[in-house]
Amino acid sequence: MNYYERALMLHKENKGKIEVISKVSVKSKDDLSLAYTPGVAEPCRAIAANPDDVYTYTTKGNMVAVVSDGSAVLGLGNIGAKAAIPVMEGKAILFKTFAGVDAFPICVESQDVETIVNTVVQIAPVFGGINLEDISSPRCVEVERRLKSLLDIPVFHDDQHGTAIVVCAALHNALKIVNKNIDTVKIVINGAGSAGNAIARMLIDIGAKNILSCDRKGILNRSTSQKNWVQDEIAQLTNTQLITGSLTDAMVDADVFIGVSSKDAVTQDMVRSMGKDAIVFAMANPDPEIMPDLALEAGAKIVGTGRSDFANQINNVLAFPGIFRGALDARASDINEAMKIAAVYAIAGLVHPDKLSPTYIIPSALDQSIGECVAKAVYDAAIESGVSRI
Amino acid sequence: MNYYERALMLHKENKGKIEVISKVSVKSKDDLSLAYTPGVAEPCRAIAANPDDVYTYTTKGNMVAVVSDGSAVLGLGNIGAKAAIPVMEGKAILFKTFAGVDAFPICVESQDVETIVNTVVQIAPVFGGINLEDISSPRCVEVERRLKSLLDIPVFHDDQHGTAIVVCAALHNALKIVNKNIDTVKIVINGAGSAGNAIARMLIDIGAKNILSCDRKGILNRSTSQKNWVQDEIAQLTNTQLITGSLTDAMVDADVFIGVSSKDAVTQDMVRSMGKDAIVFAMANPDPEIMPDLALEAGAKIVGTGRSDFANQINNVLAFPGIFRGALDARASDINEAMKIAAVYAIAGLVHPDKLSPTYIIPSALDQSIGECVAKAVYDAAIESGVSRI
Repeated sequence: MNYYERALMLHKENKGKIEVISKVSVKSKDDLSLAYTPGVAEPCRAIAANPDDVYTYTTKGNMVAVVSDGSAVLGLGNIGAKAAIPVMEGKAILFKTFAGVDAFPICVESQDVETIVNTVVQIAPVFGGINLEDISSPRCVEVERRLKSLLDIPVFHDDQHGTAIVVCAALHNALKIVNKNIDTVKIVINGAGSAGNAIARMLIDIGAKNILSCDRKGILNRSTSQKNWVQDEIAQLTNTQLITGSLTDAMVDADVFIGVSSKDAVTQDMVRSMGKDAIVFAMANPDPEIMPDLALEAGAKIVGTGRSDFANQINNVLAFPGIFRGALDARASDINEAMKIAAVYAIAGLVHPDKLSPTYIIPSALDQSIGECVAKAVYDAAIESGVSRI
Repeated sequence: MNYYERALMLHKENKGKIEVISKVSVKSKDDLSLAYTPGVAEPCRAIAANPDDVYTYTTKGNMVAVVSDGSAVLGLGNIGAKAAIPVMEGKAILFKTFAGVDAFPICVESQDVETIVNTVVQIAPVFGGINLEDISSPRCVEVERRLKSLLDIPVFHDDQHGTAIVVCAALHNALKIVNKNIDTVKIVINGAGSAGNAIARMLIDIGAKNILSCDRKGILNRSTSQKNWVQDEIAQLTNTQLITGSLTDAMVDADVFIGVSSKDAVTQDMVRSMGKDAIVFAMANPDPEIMPDLALEAGAKIVGTGRSDFANQINNVLAFPGIFRGALDARASDINEAMKIAAVYAIAGLVHPDKLSPTYIIPSALDQSIGECVAKAVYDAAIESGVSRI
């Protein structure tokens, strides 16, 4: 059986992947009197008197909602709320496995921004954080920004920021190998959706100055109007020289290619046209923009993909569990830029300098120590940047 | 330390009572490839193609939302969404303990009926059933009826129907002891909210013909207008002789008293005025309408309360776990009257005729076999009444 057949069997045999269990004993009358009536009245009274006590007496402080409307699930597109549940349950178990965070899938029926925002605001009391997932662009950016302004708990769209953080960590290490600096390299991002936007922003935050962003029509250029307001934002951030042309044109002399686009978007000729010691992150899933062997054969020095069966897997699971762990531990009101950048350098730092090589620029997704390490950096950044409430 | 101090400590040490864990292994790359990408795409595709497959490949079929707006929590009143969380987490662990049902607390910020209804509709995709809890009357009745009409999964307000089911089971057995028939006894219900309404309706469903319902102003009477539309409904169902008067007047010659009201609402004189072999269910929590020793001293034959420290604890936990278990197993679209009545007789039947006595009319809440037995009866009733979808 292949992965797909085995996955179907696994999901069927277990009827999904998550379970809600009790952390306390429920065996005797005494147990019931403490966990339920009459004893439970006391933590209720305490929280009613002091709302912050909700973090002391309930699971809120360790509970994240994994919210999706099913509009952009994996590479499957708009499959709706019900069909998105397996992914959100999967995300929930990754949260638990890699950072001890309890997470619960919330799949929203509507794909209207207003309705999604209102729904999440209404159910926020039981959650310590909101992880947005697989919502199509540009709606996802609007949902995230509105929720950030409305809620006093962290809101984080993983497809945007998780991806950006891991890309920046991988690039930080890759640049060390090729002896180039972030502020002088030419970077091409292919895919001008919410992930491309977040990657561009974070690259600028860590020092990048020369970024070209492409969509299917070519290089985004602020002198012409874009497809939507997210692309308008990207155009404002990138391509300061107002270059026009195709992805092929953009790639000439580029030091770094970052693909969040689709299968086969990049040819060997494009890689050949890049600068010396080119870095290629071909992250389209499941089929990268160019297969690693082809990119290497065409002269790329370092290649990363989203896949676990090649070297340098650029995978969000390196980031989101530890980021939420740190934010929850700090009882942060937000996951801000300082916290995200702390995560970038924490992840990059997990690759020991002696072991750094073109095939090892980013730690393995299965390394259980990553969550804790990222959490500590994010926690410290939350305290320093003033969003912690402990 | 008393219950309250110990309960506070228990909640603090564990930071709440629930935990979300994985049912599948997440240790190797292979595990990740099945539970997450790329394997997870396959159950997603299956559900997109056939929405009913959501019951096959996700936890939906075993997952209940415990929904409250915190407007009527225990005897604490309107303490809000956050302060209600300990109760909803408690309910979730009872679901798991007594029937293996996964349940998750959803505490809604707003107390507006429209907003609560819309929120629950939006998050319904991941749930196989909705248990409403601790929402004040008459709003709770409206929320339940609207959700029942909008959703294709069971919606059940436990404070109404769970209470009614257990009261009817207890009364069924109590009447056997005193050799009276449900269709001839005079029943007084004190407390004309949503629970009182549901109890009256279910008593009528099992054959009661002579019910008086009282609130603080006395006997409800359809010839005068009531406080709200729920009381209007109760008045239409009860007091066919249009009797007027106080609770004291109502109690004269009554065979059964059912209290869902408040501490000390019933005096010994009132019990003395009741008919021979009076049955008194004084269920106000934590302090009953009259203490059992006082009621017995005043001549009551059988006394039940909501408390675990007296005989005959009339406790919802006897009903709701098994009811949802049965409804979920039958993939029922509703929890209808037939299913509720099946639960009544299943619970009553758990007291063996040889053991039936004035101090043992209802099984112990801790009896782990109850859930299964109730589930079977409810499952069968779902099939027979045509709401099962398996």
